Amino acid sequence: MNERPIQVFEVGGLVVDADTVIPGPAYLAVANGRVQAVGPGAWTESLDHRDGATVHRMPRRIAIPGLINAHGHAAMTLFRGAGDDVPLQTWLQQKIFPLEQQLTADAVYWGTLLACWEMVTSGTTCFTDMYFFMEQSARAVAESGLRAALSPGLLGFTEEMQAEGLAESRRFARDWHGAAGGRIQVLLGPHAPYTCPPPFLHRVADLSAELGLGIQIHLSETRAEVTDSVAAHGRTPIEQMVDVGLFERPVLAAHCVHVTATDIQVLQQRDVRVAHNPQSNLKLGSGIAPLVELLAAGVTVALGTDGAASNNNLDLFEELRLAATLHKGRLEDATAVPAKDAFAMATERGARAVFRPPLDGTLRPGASADLVFLDADSPRFQPQYDLLSNVVYAASAADVCDVFIGEQFVVENRQPTTLDTERISFEVARIARAFQRG
Amino acid sequence: MNERPIQVFEVGGLVVDADTVIPGPAYLAVANGRVQAVGPGAWTESLDHRDGATVHRMPRRIAIPGLINAHGHAAMTLFRGAGDDVPLQTWLQQKIFPLEQQLTADAVYWGTLLACWEMVTSGTTCFTDMYFFMEQSARAVAESGLRAALSPGLLGFTEEMQAEGLAESRRFARDWHGAAGGRIQVLLGPHAPYTCPPPFLHRVADLSAELGLGIQIHLSETRAEVTDSVAAHGRTPIEQMVDVGLFERPVLAAHCVHVTATDIQVLQQRDVRVAHNPQSNLKLGSGIAPLVELLAAGVTVALGTDGAASNNNLDLFEELRLAATLHKGRLEDATAVPAKDAFAMATERGARAVFRPPLDGTLRPGASADLVFLDADSPRFQPQYDLLSNVVYAASAADVCDVFIGEQFVVENRQPTTLDTERISFEVARIARAFQRG
Repeated sequence: MNERPIQVFEVGGLVVDADTVIPGPAYLAVANGRVQAVGPGAWTESLDHRDGATVHRMPRRIAIPGLINAHGHAAMTLFRGAGDDVPLQTWLQQKIFPLEQQLTADAVYWGTLLACWEMVTSGTTCFTDMYFFMEQSARAVAESGLRAALSPGLLGFTEEMQAEGLAESRRFARDWHGAAGGRIQVLLGPHAPYTCPPPFLHRVADLSAELGLGIQIHLSETRAEVTDSVAAHGRTPIEQMVDVGLFERPVLAAHCVHVTATDIQVLQQRDVRVAHNPQSNLKLGSGIAPLVELLAAGVTVALGTDGAASNNNLDLFEELRLAATLHKGRLEDATAVPAKDAFAMATERGARAVFRPPLDGTLRPGASADLVFLDADSPRFQPQYDLLSNVVYAASAADVCDVFIGEQFVVENRQPTTLDTERISFEVARIARAFQRG
Repeated sequence: MNERPIQVFEVGGLVVDADTVIPGPAYLAVANGRVQAVGPGAWTESLDHRDGATVHRMPRRIAIPGLINAHGHAAMTLFRGAGDDVPLQTWLQQKIFPLEQQLTADAVYWGTLLACWEMVTSGTTCFTDMYFFMEQSARAVAESGLRAALSPGLLGFTEEMQAEGLAESRRFARDWHGAAGGRIQVLLGPHAPYTCPPPFLHRVADLSAELGLGIQIHLSETRAEVTDSVAAHGRTPIEQMVDVGLFERPVLAAHCVHVTATDIQVLQQRDVRVAHNPQSNLKLGSGIAPLVELLAAGVTVALGTDGAASNNNLDLFEELRLAATLHKGRLEDATAVPAKDAFAMATERGARAVFRPPLDGTLRPGASADLVFLDADSPRFQPQYDLLSNVVYAASAADVCDVFIGEQFVVENRQPTTLDTERISFEVARIARAFQRG
């Protein structure tokens, strides 16, 4: 018997979803990991009191749905600051690839824990990951209490790599899909069209259908990638994905910076989810994705940080703000990407993009109970004309006080409850020193 | 007799300036409000021990120079979130101007205190302000312990406004220039060429020469402003400023988003300082300033948040990061605006832009002792390959632990020591309610 079947949060304000904001006192009741009820006022005034409920009185907190980071490479926290201010190809060839040669299972485990620590204390409760040694990432996620959609990265340079990759993905899906009480899902993760030849992508699509898994892939990140694809195949990377049948399956495509009008139509028609990574795209000099055009076409767009080596943090509040402001500046149109759209991208549309169940990414009854509690006493929340505006345009990681995922607090008073942060710092420093010795 | 003539900070890392970083243990000694000595290791190992020194042992802190916010309207915190996602003219005419009609001295006082609270807890130690009821802002600055360059806003719509404005500026400069132990400076603040006709700007330049004061002004913020100026006068706003003699004086020009190649040449030749406000320019749909071109021409460019009504926060770490990444994306060039440039804009060049003495904005001996202590135990500082990269590309307001300005800690353990934050929130809420009643 569960002795605490219901947990109730009484807060000073609550964002249910982008369209539903309770600016004053509000309650939210959780049972079995899901939101049961939500509304204005105090819980005891609104529902019959039931014995055994735990009531968390948090009048100086504002509750929002946990943020969803729809694209990243968690363990690349290990390379934070290892190479900045250089062109993408130099960054990859001279900085990142040599470091990645030294990666070990141990390194990926600690690097992923560092990412979980950073993400959860800045308001992210669910993320995607595509990288090496993915069973170590899964272990880290299971321990951390976060949710994640995980993909062993697939590269198709040789027939052997292809076969090994597919076998590894098959094993990983068997061991981890639905694990950690459903917090972990598995996606197949072909890296990109320029690293995975068409016949291999075709086999990935087949395996995805066989196992009933979604797919995540990098698409049209740089201008050179698109130019090369057109030169070699007469097709954009997105058109190529149609040819190989990838879009017959549910796909989450990261970046989509350099897309044509036809590409956008394809993304909409095939219901391809797009992860927009504005800060990484800026920092690597990749460019600015046509977000307004993607949204106007009805494409489901979510937000991602990308890895910490190209960002260099995993703060989704920054991406949320950048998504809301960058395109206003690009188009010289202050009405572009209003606060509601940006917030939905970081929450409800993020959940849809990473294949979470319906309602997730909101705090409506039935949603997974993933809650971030912001500090109503922060200067950034004074005054309060428009709570959603304050969350989107003013709030920051500094305002994240507590985080609840499913059935437990994973952050309390700004400290993770599930992670030994001192140990993580120690191990990451050890690993970074070893990398530097080469 | 001062019983504590020397204060020494022993920290885990120290950024002296953009070119000088001490990644490991370091010390910094302060006396009479200025940096006396700085170096690696512990102070007692490096200098003769002197009786009476207070040694602050802060091994888990990273010290950087206080950030300098070179453009803003502090009391506009009162309008945070009062109008988003609307075009600039609608924002001004329908949202901001009606609210500003209701401004009182009391409101400006509390709004400025809110701004000081927000800025100092996010790492800003010095800011500029141009607004109404400026004596109230000066009171707030004096109490807060921050440094500021303050300008009563000048509008020249009528002869009477012009005369009153110049008289007010004269009084304000007499009362406040050099006040609060030199923490307050006064600048003349003509709002913009489109609100201050040429003869008035000429008189402003004359008064500036008479009183020995610098000037701050908004220039070329929007495309329409420049188009209108060219249509009406055959001159860009910047060319107009040459005509009226404004650039004979030391000038800090905010925005400069829509500037011609000739404009840039003028800015460089006349040593006009530019305050780049990337987030405000994006959010209002004004556009993206040609920062790379300005820097290449040798113009002194600093960073500003602008007011919280158009940002909507006063977090200079966000501007620092945006300045470093936005132009990489705009130009598809990952080498644009490297970390050192962005950091210098937020610190040493910021000090030069707001007419602080030489060395300020650094931690070199002789500089004003304005120090921000960041949390070395933050996930954003793990691992540490490149301390400056971590500060520029990863750190956030969440990492600001302590702030020291001149001779005192103004923030300790993330809490202001000089400000009653509960009272400020209470008063700002009261004022905002009154505004909403209209």
